[in-house]
Amino acid sequence: MTHTAPDPARTTGTWPVREVADLDEATLERLDRWWRAANYLSVGQIYLLDNPLLRRELVAEDIKPRLLGHWGTTPGLNFLYAHLNRAIAERDTSTIYITGPGHGGPGLVASSYLEGTYTETYPDITEDAEGLRTLFRQFSFPGGIPSHVAPETPGSIHEGGELGYALSHAYGAAFDNPDLLVATVIGDGEAETGPLATAWHGNKLLNPVHDGAVLPILHLNGYKIANPTLLSRIPSEELADLMRGYGHTPYEFVAGFDDEPAASIHQRFARMLDEVLNQIAEMKASAAAGETGRPAWPMIVFRTPKGWTCPAEIDGKPAEGSWRAHQVPLANARDTPEHLAVLEGWLRSYRPDELFDEAGAVQPDIAALAPEGELRMSANPVANGGLLLRDLRLPDFRDFCVDVPAPGATVAEATRVLGTWLTEVIRRNPDTFRIFGPDETASNRLQAVYDDTDKQWNADYLDADEDNHLARVGRVVEVLSEHQCQGWLEGYLLTGRHGLFNCYEAFIHIIDSMFNQHAKWLDVTREIPWRRPIASLNYLLSSHVWRQDHNGFSHQDPGFLDHVLNKKPEVVRVYLPPDANTLLSTYDHLLRSRDYINVVVAGKQPGPQLLDADQAVAHCTRGLGIWEWAGTEVVGEDPDVVLACAGDVPTLEVLAAADLLRQHLPELKVRVVNVVDLMRLQDEKEHPHGLSTRDFDTIFTTDRPVIFAFHGYPWLIHRLTYRRTGHANLHVRGYKEEGTTTTPFDMVMLNDLDRYHLVMDVIDRVPGLGSRAATLRQQMADARLAARQYTREHGDDLPEVRDWVWPDAARVQAAGGTPTLADGAVSTGGDNE
Amino acid sequence: MTHTAPDPARTTGTWPVREVADLDEATLERLDRWWRAANYLSVGQIYLLDNPLLRRELVAEDIKPRLLGHWGTTPGLNFLYAHLNRAIAERDTSTIYITGPGHGGPGLVASSYLEGTYTETYPDITEDAEGLRTLFRQFSFPGGIPSHVAPETPGSIHEGGELGYALSHAYGAAFDNPDLLVATVIGDGEAETGPLATAWHGNKLLNPVHDGAVLPILHLNGYKIANPTLLSRIPSEELADLMRGYGHTPYEFVAGFDDEPAASIHQRFARMLDEVLNQIAEMKASAAAGETGRPAWPMIVFRTPKGWTCPAEIDGKPAEGSWRAHQVPLANARDTPEHLAVLEGWLRSYRPDELFDEAGAVQPDIAALAPEGELRMSANPVANGGLLLRDLRLPDFRDFCVDVPAPGATVAEATRVLGTWLTEVIRRNPDTFRIFGPDETASNRLQAVYDDTDKQWNADYLDADEDNHLARVGRVVEVLSEHQCQGWLEGYLLTGRHGLFNCYEAFIHIIDSMFNQHAKWLDVTREIPWRRPIASLNYLLSSHVWRQDHNGFSHQDPGFLDHVLNKKPEVVRVYLPPDANTLLSTYDHLLRSRDYINVVVAGKQPGPQLLDADQAVAHCTRGLGIWEWAGTEVVGEDPDVVLACAGDVPTLEVLAAADLLRQHLPELKVRVVNVVDLMRLQDEKEHPHGLSTRDFDTIFTTDRPVIFAFHGYPWLIHRLTYRRTGHANLHVRGYKEEGTTTTPFDMVMLNDLDRYHLVMDVIDRVPGLGSRAATLRQQMADARLAARQYTREHGDDLPEVRDWVWPDAARVQAAGGTPTLADGAVSTGGDNE
Repeated sequence: MTHTAPDPARTTGTWPVREVADLDEATLERLDRWWRAANYLSVGQIYLLDNPLLRRELVAEDIKPRLLGHWGTTPGLNFLYAHLNRAIAERDTSTIYITGPGHGGPGLVASSYLEGTYTETYPDITEDAEGLRTLFRQFSFPGGIPSHVAPETPGSIHEGGELGYALSHAYGAAFDNPDLLVATVIGDGEAETGPLATAWHGNKLLNPVHDGAVLPILHLNGYKIANPTLLSRIPSEELADLMRGYGHTPYEFVAGFDDEPAASIHQRFARMLDEVLNQIAEMKASAAAGETGRPAWPMIVFRTPKGWTCPAEIDGKPAEGSWRAHQVPLANARDTPEHLAVLEGWLRSYRPDELFDEAGAVQPDIAALAPEGELRMSANPVANGGLLLRDLRLPDFRDFCVDVPAPGATVAEATRVLGTWLTEVIRRNPDTFRIFGPDETASNRLQAVYDDTDKQWNADYLDADEDNHLARVGRVVEVLSEHQCQGWLEGYLLTGRHGLFNCYEAFIHIIDSMFNQHAKWLDVTREIPWRRPIASLNYLLSSHVWRQDHNGFSHQDPGFLDHVLNKKPEVVRVYLPPDANTLLSTYDHLLRSRDYINVVVAGKQPGPQLLDADQAVAHCTRGLGIWEWAGTEVVGEDPDVVLACAGDVPTLEVLAAADLLRQHLPELKVRVVNVVDLMRLQDEKEHPHGLSTRDFDTIFTTDRPVIFAFHGYPWLIHRLTYRRTGHANLHVRGYKEEGTTTTPFDMVMLNDLDRYHLVMDVIDRVPGLGSRAATLRQQMADARLAARQYTREHGDDLPEVRDWVWPDAARVQAAGGTPTLADGAVSTGGDNE
Repeated sequence: MTHTAPDPARTTGTWPVREVADLDEATLERLDRWWRAANYLSVGQIYLLDNPLLRRELVAEDIKPRLLGHWGTTPGLNFLYAHLNRAIAERDTSTIYITGPGHGGPGLVASSYLEGTYTETYPDITEDAEGLRTLFRQFSFPGGIPSHVAPETPGSIHEGGELGYALSHAYGAAFDNPDLLVATVIGDGEAETGPLATAWHGNKLLNPVHDGAVLPILHLNGYKIANPTLLSRIPSEELADLMRGYGHTPYEFVAGFDDEPAASIHQRFARMLDEVLNQIAEMKASAAAGETGRPAWPMIVFRTPKGWTCPAEIDGKPAEGSWRAHQVPLANARDTPEHLAVLEGWLRSYRPDELFDEAGAVQPDIAALAPEGELRMSANPVANGGLLLRDLRLPDFRDFCVDVPAPGATVAEATRVLGTWLTEVIRRNPDTFRIFGPDETASNRLQAVYDDTDKQWNADYLDADEDNHLARVGRVVEVLSEHQCQGWLEGYLLTGRHGLFNCYEAFIHIIDSMFNQHAKWLDVTREIPWRRPIASLNYLLSSHVWRQDHNGFSHQDPGFLDHVLNKKPEVVRVYLPPDANTLLSTYDHLLRSRDYINVVVAGKQPGPQLLDADQAVAHCTRGLGIWEWAGTEVVGEDPDVVLACAGDVPTLEVLAAADLLRQHLPELKVRVVNVVDLMRLQDEKEHPHGLSTRDFDTIFTTDRPVIFAFHGYPWLIHRLTYRRTGHANLHVRGYKEEGTTTTPFDMVMLNDLDRYHLVMDVIDRVPGLGSRAATLRQQMADARLAARQYTREHGDDLPEVRDWVWPDAARVQAAGGTPTLADGAVSTGGDNE
């Protein structure tokens, strides 16, 4: 805790350095009055149905019948909010407030009400007694607002539900916002979670010039629901070591455990906050002056009693300073006159008569503590990112499409091709688009982006790093924590920017619960008109379940798609482009979309390219379609069988099966259907992308066998189609928790998704095929066995299987040689996967 | 890094204190020979199909066609394993080795081969040239073993797939194993994950007398797949601060970056390891002597080059010490003579001719480094916990059942009743059963267990803690990290003990991916005969989606059930007991089961008790059943409609709907079916618990409307039943991402799962009910609206809805008063939820 003397000459732009001096009495008094008002409003929300200003004696009917909410963290949040307001008003630093202890919902509602924002946002909550009554009543009440900080809370980008993501959201908000201060309160319960415990390291990815500053405030109030918290129960010096180890300069503040007068407490904290803000300003100035290296940014350890200022004891048991203050310290407020008196005494301890005028409006001197306009934390447009969002400048993806003279005649790695387009996206949008990934961006073969940018890195450098695409500023942000990638991207999007998260498919389950929370946030904000639409959260899942060559069974799980589909249809989209051009077309669409969560699964391994640019656009626009070129159907007639597919590996196997059928049973009318947009399978009543019954039946028929080869767990297709007319004829093959092999075709054989099996399925399901089909069936079984035997002996797939190409491609190749390797579109080896 | 002089007099049991002295040359040489042998065997596994001893020149055909595996972390793991072996042989301390960098699969296979365990376990892998050839060939090969540390690896309890759980598993293994040392290697990539970043705090929950010791070894080799690692790129002193902040005494070791002779490296590390082990022994001795307080356990920072000992450069680019050494440093080993020569040179650098005898067996002096028998880390029975597992001594749960004179006549909180039984389970099994929870054990109302035990806590204490049920030793372990709870329980079970994890339903998604990995582990071990069955992993999900009164929309997600059902049917079980006695009966069954993952969802709120002890046993044994007492069907005839339910809230609503139908449409034949074991709905061919078609059709009929009220997302029921004969008649109501209210019935109304809606469903689906039904339908709609209006006005549910009881209960109450509150089975208020 070494402080340099403030040097106002070092002031830069919105980061002033101010002399640290004692506050005058009026300011101290104003701070305390704000704090008391915020606390009063918070307690009022938890308890009161009526009598909001206590202008008459409190009676049982004034109290809500069900007391629901959380008091414990609220007074601390209110204290910090008040002090930040004082500092913002003096410094004009654009600031947002991230409430890690989301349970402090009443506090953030109270603060935005004091700032006037709440009434501006919800005109029904007027600045008078009636408005207060409505404000109190709506809290944690049927048809009202949640007890947590929520999308409904002005100034919030952070839902107070599942804990752990306050700091990740903070860093996400700070990226590319060089003039923004992100004041981030971290509860000591939250600090025990894994995601938060690693989020501290975000300071090693932040650039002090191009990004904003994050001020973590660890609010140690000592208790969780029913237990003390770990960080409040280690020695102070050990905690300081931990914070230094995380790369911070810790400042510790302790208050509320003795009889220190309020003015003294405010004085001490205000001085400390000024020192901290000066230190941040100094660090910004040094960096702006060209000093590289990572600053040891300040952070505050803020120790107060849990439920600070509530009654010390209730019914003879400790309340303030104990876990009992976590939720509603006085749970039976209206059952006895004694309890009523306790509540009334508690409310009156804030001296409401001094805080509100006759009409019930907050006294103007209190409101004057806040800064004005958009400098109010509850009115900062950064926290309503849609207000700031601008479209990306997108290059025409057609210019990046691979040439496909015939289906399968070109070989490319889909994600590698996408990377070439993303490079240009980055070039055109140098401050508003980022790629996040858990050390997998190159492994997922997006490495073309390093032609134009680097991985942002502000930890130590070595000489050898020339080789590593690391730089102090870069558009790619990587750390081995899916939680951080997700949290950063959420924070970045919620503050009005664009991006994507690329990840191995199996490991995306790590953020299942974060996905839930973001999906719920989007779902709720769709009904909140003042929340403007934000850019969609885009996943690129590669290194998918069917090609985990370097890894094993543990890396195989396609279930994120199932998880995603449990959320509101209005919010989620799932795409399985079968090749590079369809992937390009899909991503071009997604980077223009708003308020969705888009999941794209795409392969990174060399694979046959099937559609040229125009075909890809048409196919992706439809979302699914019949590939006449691959089938053998007769125009105007229903086929004998439909082979459907979704996903690159299943598509390859369906094409190979179609080829076998064409060779061996040429009279069989086979239809091939490929699905890119999985939501098309649902009914139009269930999902906005859903096909009408008529369209679905036209494509899949109502009575012919449909063999569906699917990338994921097979029942997902059943779930999407169980109401469809022909559902009883649908047979799905997909992943079945059987995979653990190292060669691609061996893997699909293990899961019975292989071409031979698909042909056998057709033979089993199409009636009247006769003896020739029976012979073919045996041939398929034998071929399958031979292929399996070959892998066991040679450690590789049978060449005739591995090198199979679609007949048209073979013809093109017969003219011109082996399959064309699309330029720059396949690996030259030597990369880690 | 302060070391006390060793004091052998302090030696206790298996924790000797030894003098720290230089090793003799023979021991140093033996260490180095072991290390070279392990490295040679590791490289051989990655590359070689044949020519395992290089007894002839290496040719292209000796090399695997697909090179898959990870070298980067392997030499470090081998080094540490060798040194631990030396120490174990000298100290006889029972030790297991947890390989956080699970990519180091070849290293752990190599080490167990050198210990002889691999050949004992897999007799086909003989200790000669042919055995080596098979050993090499099987690695990352079709039909062989995975490239990671896996269930197939002797001595492992930790799958090397998704990273982050090494330390949690370590602490889980150490609980109640006072004589066990858990040497835990943490990769510097893994150290960036959230779960690992908080797992360090496990030392605050460990008891130094009753539990074992965990020795974390942070293996900093500097790189991940394609990036440097954060902890390798902060100053050494900052890292030491971090470790001190985590409560450890750090010891740093650096080697491999210069020309230091191997003997010197081994000498330095051996001395350090002896100091570290002495310090652990001293701490154990102090604690045994009665010193309370938390020791600052030692940990080792182990810095070496990535891919240590591989070629420094390949094709002119750095290999050793760079990210390029992460997987297969020489990826194109057989494409040119030059590359072949590089590989051969690398292999020969370990001087295999000095390490293996003529037949190909490891030289006996090398093998002699290892301890003997079960002291070998790869043969320690702790790492094959089923060998040590003993049945729990379970009290008769019938003695804990609540009295149910008539359905609904008793009110109790299901989980609170379970807690009374668990108290006795704990009493009878004081060292082999633990409850883990993220600060929710009391909130989930299992607090009766604190009558007999406490929460184990070894951080600081305050005077006020008398109130907190904290103790140095206790059967409940809580921290606000679902990841830790899951990891600890896995570690505890994998080492042969029993336990459960209680959690809010919404937050269990946090460990979705950990569940995946454990399910896959169990799936694989079922096929490995030498892995003995372990106790099942039991979840108790309470504070469920339908009663999140204090919280909101973000706490509502029943999708873990969907997630679980994606895993192998042989491994997963899901139960939804509707009341306390069925919950008791279910849990009694689960604590006797093996090798499953059991998910139980049960309410904690006061609710009607429906079945007495005998009925509960019969119902749970069947897993589902017709409740004749609740329906109006005529024996021997099919009903007009089936009302089915799964989950406590849906069951309540179905009973209330049945009551309404009985009153208003008495001639309608209604069947009520309750499902406890969700897997019964599947076909017997799909799940071992599945009902036969005949049984299913008998219960649900083949042609009558079935209205199914379900706890979770409705499509899960469709997924389980879509092949059933009567599926087209099934209408499911469940949770639909619409919930955000604070009163129970308002919540079910919001989701259309309420009694009125169920009655309307029946009227809509049973043909020919006539005008009386039409009138009833309108009544129901009106009643629903009135109930909704009431909540908006009063903040509580309409009393006639909230206080509804089953008619039989009403009759019992008419005789004896209001519903009986089962003794000690309902809250007396004042708890946090």
